[in-house]
Amino acid sequence: MSTTIERAPLNGVDVATLLGTRDAVKQTNEIAKFQFRATNAWVAGTHSRSTFADFHGAMQELRHEQDTVVESDHPAVLVGSDVAPTPVEYLLHAIAACLTSGIANVAAARGVRLTHVSSTVAGDIDLLGILGLSGGAVRNGYEQVKVTFRVEGDADDATLRDIVEQSRRRSAVYDALTNPTPVHIEVVTG
Amino acid sequence: MSTTIERAPLNGVDVATLLGTRDAVKQTNEIAKFQFRATNAWVAGTHSRSTFADFHGAMQELRHEQDTVVESDHPAVLVGSDVAPTPVEYLLHAIAACLTSGIANVAAARGVRLTHVSSTVAGDIDLLGILGLSGGAVRNGYEQVKVTFRVEGDADDATLRDIVEQSRRRSAVYDALTNPTPVHIEVVTG
Repeated sequence: MSTTIERAPLNGVDVATLLGTRDAVKQTNEIAKFQFRATNAWVAGTHSRSTFADFHGAMQELRHEQDTVVESDHPAVLVGSDVAPTPVEYLLHAIAACLTSGIANVAAARGVRLTHVSSTVAGDIDLLGILGLSGGAVRNGYEQVKVTFRVEGDADDATLRDIVEQSRRRSAVYDALTNPTPVHIEVVTG
Repeated sequence: MSTTIERAPLNGVDVATLLGTRDAVKQTNEIAKFQFRATNAWVAGTHSRSTFADFHGAMQELRHEQDTVVESDHPAVLVGSDVAPTPVEYLLHAIAACLTSGIANVAAARGVRLTHVSSTVAGDIDLLGILGLSGGAVRNGYEQVKVTFRVEGDADDATLRDIVEQSRRRSAVYDALTNPTPVHIEVVTG
């Protein structure tokens, strides 16, 4: 069954195309198999640089409209040169951005016009873990991450909260962080 | 017991300061409690923008040398405007950058001079999950992430591999992805 309701874009979301894409995937599951990629090059010390360019999806090799380069480093207090945010800070961007895009999509699909979405994300981490000083009692990663959203739009409090909750239920990054994600590491030396 | 070995910087890592920082934390565990932060603002559709500016650590409020702004969007094939990488791509940068900074630090601490570290990261994701088309059979996040390192330096294959392995054991992002990280979401509506 195909969705044939005509809908104008809402919240900058082309709802008709969004629903059409979902229908296409329902017909041909293979369209949904994606592979995202990054290449990273060490610069010096704790400073490295990643590039996002191509990816696979919708049964084809694809390329972003433009390559994006991001960098990471450690701050001076962690013996870096602080030319860029730490790797763990990018996790905070990832969760905020993933939930926010979901909020816009879900709201648009439900006919809710949003006027404001912003968030602050805070991740608590005890570096006794990565410094190897806890005897295994402290984990290496974040003890917890807290995301606080401000959401405004032409719907009541309960409706807006339910949009955020539905975004959480369908969030790729929320799942990647809250559940174990297998990470395989291969090494080629030269 | 304090480490008093004098060491010249290696791989761009100030090893004496790195070991001194570890000793200071051993004396005063409170130094190791950090909180990293991001603020995110929705732009339109699936496009949002995060800023990294301040953080807490070493018993004080701190600020990066410069604010960093990063953006996310969905590609056209996922009904976005593709002005920036997807949120999940930032997870790939985070794991590569975290492992790479660890490799440089561990190698320096072990007296190994590195001449090259680079990596490619690939994350496989089946969007049947986030599209709600799998009946719960497919997860929302990555099915797996694969990191392939090329590491070169003045040490043999086994030594270089062991440096990567030690970096993995102490990696904050590796832990955050491979083990469950609690993520709390609060919503304020207006």
